[in-house]
Amino acid sequence: MPAKFSYYMPTKLFFGKGSLNRLKKIKLPGTKAFLVTGGSSTTRLGYVDRVVALLKEKGVETVIFNKVLPNPNHAHVNEGAQIIRQEGCDFLIGIGGGSSVDSAKAMAMAAVNPGDCWQYIFGGEKIKNKPLPVIAIPTTAGTGTEADPWTVITNEQTNEKIGFGGDLFYPAISIVDCELMMSVPPFLTACQGFDALFHAVEGYIAKIASPISDMFALKSIQLIGENLARAVENGDDEEARGNVAMASTISGIVESLSCCTSEHAMEHAMSAFYPKLTHGAGLIIISAAYHSHLAKALPQRYIDMAKALGKKDAQDPMDFVQALVQLQKDCGVEQLKMSDYGIKKEDAARFADNAYETGGSMISADRAPVTKEDMIRIYEASFR
Amino acid sequence: MPAKFSYYMPTKLFFGKGSLNRLKKIKLPGTKAFLVTGGSSTTRLGYVDRVVALLKEKGVETVIFNKVLPNPNHAHVNEGAQIIRQEGCDFLIGIGGGSSVDSAKAMAMAAVNPGDCWQYIFGGEKIKNKPLPVIAIPTTAGTGTEADPWTVITNEQTNEKIGFGGDLFYPAISIVDCELMMSVPPFLTACQGFDALFHAVEGYIAKIASPISDMFALKSIQLIGENLARAVENGDDEEARGNVAMASTISGIVESLSCCTSEHAMEHAMSAFYPKLTHGAGLIIISAAYHSHLAKALPQRYIDMAKALGKKDAQDPMDFVQALVQLQKDCGVEQLKMSDYGIKKEDAARFADNAYETGGSMISADRAPVTKEDMIRIYEASFR
Repeated sequence: MPAKFSYYMPTKLFFGKGSLNRLKKIKLPGTKAFLVTGGSSTTRLGYVDRVVALLKEKGVETVIFNKVLPNPNHAHVNEGAQIIRQEGCDFLIGIGGGSSVDSAKAMAMAAVNPGDCWQYIFGGEKIKNKPLPVIAIPTTAGTGTEADPWTVITNEQTNEKIGFGGDLFYPAISIVDCELMMSVPPFLTACQGFDALFHAVEGYIAKIASPISDMFALKSIQLIGENLARAVENGDDEEARGNVAMASTISGIVESLSCCTSEHAMEHAMSAFYPKLTHGAGLIIISAAYHSHLAKALPQRYIDMAKALGKKDAQDPMDFVQALVQLQKDCGVEQLKMSDYGIKKEDAARFADNAYETGGSMISADRAPVTKEDMIRIYEASFR
Repeated sequence: MPAKFSYYMPTKLFFGKGSLNRLKKIKLPGTKAFLVTGGSSTTRLGYVDRVVALLKEKGVETVIFNKVLPNPNHAHVNEGAQIIRQEGCDFLIGIGGGSSVDSAKAMAMAAVNPGDCWQYIFGGEKIKNKPLPVIAIPTTAGTGTEADPWTVITNEQTNEKIGFGGDLFYPAISIVDCELMMSVPPFLTACQGFDALFHAVEGYIAKIASPISDMFALKSIQLIGENLARAVENGDDEEARGNVAMASTISGIVESLSCCTSEHAMEHAMSAFYPKLTHGAGLIIISAAYHSHLAKALPQRYIDMAKALGKKDAQDPMDFVQALVQLQKDCGVEQLKMSDYGIKKEDAARFADNAYETGGSMISADRAPVTKEDMIRIYEASFR
């Protein structure tokens, strides 16, 4: 047994095609639902109506909040919390991408704790009352928020984007139904899938990795390696979609048990300056240089990951980087360039400063150090 | 993604040498503890005193119940429940072998639900109130009860032994500290370790196995294969002890996500007629014949398990049985015989009858059928 470690992931997960219908059978954590969503695709594709109808069959009324933005903001969290109190809702359903689930998690806390939610998220005020239960229903495969206790909320007044959470923030129930993901277009499928991959990869190379987080991480890497290109190429491939969805959720468990490293901090810095950059695309752009830098420092970890990603006979840590680049080719995203998003080579230094300023716990999670100078070299090497 | 499946294991697990000291740091689930134990070795070795002292440092008082028998009985559960109510304890600590943790789980329910506990365990009466929280501290590596929602209670008046449980029965917290297991003697270390192995093996071949239970099962099989003989040979080998402890807990997770098969039902029948037969020893005695029978029916599953158990180049399902028998030799238990316990070859038929009568869910968990006639053949082939 290695050093001490812990395991905690109390969410009840339901996987599989058609598992949305579980809503009919499972014991719901309350009697009046507050449904949180972005409101465009989840409504257009009929998912919101399906949820409302399934709950109605059980005599459960639903109040809909469909204004969630791609970066969930704190005004909406406060607004949602107020409606929850007025309407007497006693549980939440977050359906959509990560932003909808993250908003539901934050509203669940804000609804039962007095005042502006920002004081708890940013102000360090202690949460007095346990958040209301949340049911997470992801319609994208990437963030893993359905299996982790984290939420990212932006204060639109101060432009601060804060990751926040803890044991009280795990969803009570998550339903991972690939049928709800079939219409995600190829490019986003790829970007989200690589986000899920890097949650697993970073969790595997993080300092606090444990034998159990390792097991989940390698399983997710394997599932992404075997299925992501298929899901990108043919969005109707239910098996590939389902396996990528499972990988994303498993990567969420990795985020619960281990954590992200400086790679995520480096990407957050890029998106902070260039908000149009998709998070997954940013990760893809820097990933080959980042992992080339670390492979030498952590050879066995990278050989393990190369094997999981499909290079069964891997003996060299750089085999992982080769397999990673090959997967990017197979998913049609190897040509993504910083210049596509207006990023300049000279941005490297301010990116690195920002990553170091805001990336605290992710940077201290690095098993092998990535200095600010290393970051600059990685950004510059990634520039095209 | 395969057929629908679910994941739920809400216990907070702490692993590692010395992790008993976590009691000082973690948030306890109550303010007055009811400590449940068998009372001999846990007291003699000072574990009970350590727990009481650690809780005292936090201002938490402990009431001790140290009468648990190897087969926990329902009178003790009722007695414990009454003391809990009288003393106003609001959480339980089960420390010892599986029987202590199982008793704590049952008392936690009985303390807050009126009447004789047997009506809930056997009588089908609905549990009205959520059981009190339980902290499980196993001092043996075998049952996995610290990570599953099951408890086995015997009615000493009617001689019925009932497995019972459900989502409400997961321990709130489990502490898996190999330091508390160092003095388990070699034979029991082997028997308990094989019990843990078969929880994983049966969970892997059960009908309801899922990709996540499979992952845990193969990890546990691998850990047992690499460490059990070392722990048996040298009880002071902390690394081996720690890895076997982790395997046992991981096998408990497998029991939570998947389930045992007819192998466990067949052993329960043997112990029912011959109570002196150690459960793990019974499993060891029938295991080669049992798995030889099933290997042909589930070739890929058995090849996977053979690889996990150390035969990396396995291509034949019977490679698993070979590796299993080799491990039994390496652990010094390959010579265990039914006749050592007074079992006769003619017992085979009544064993099979009993297994079929009492093994309901375990028998229906078989992916490939094991008929009563198959069982008789397996018992007879195992006879020495």
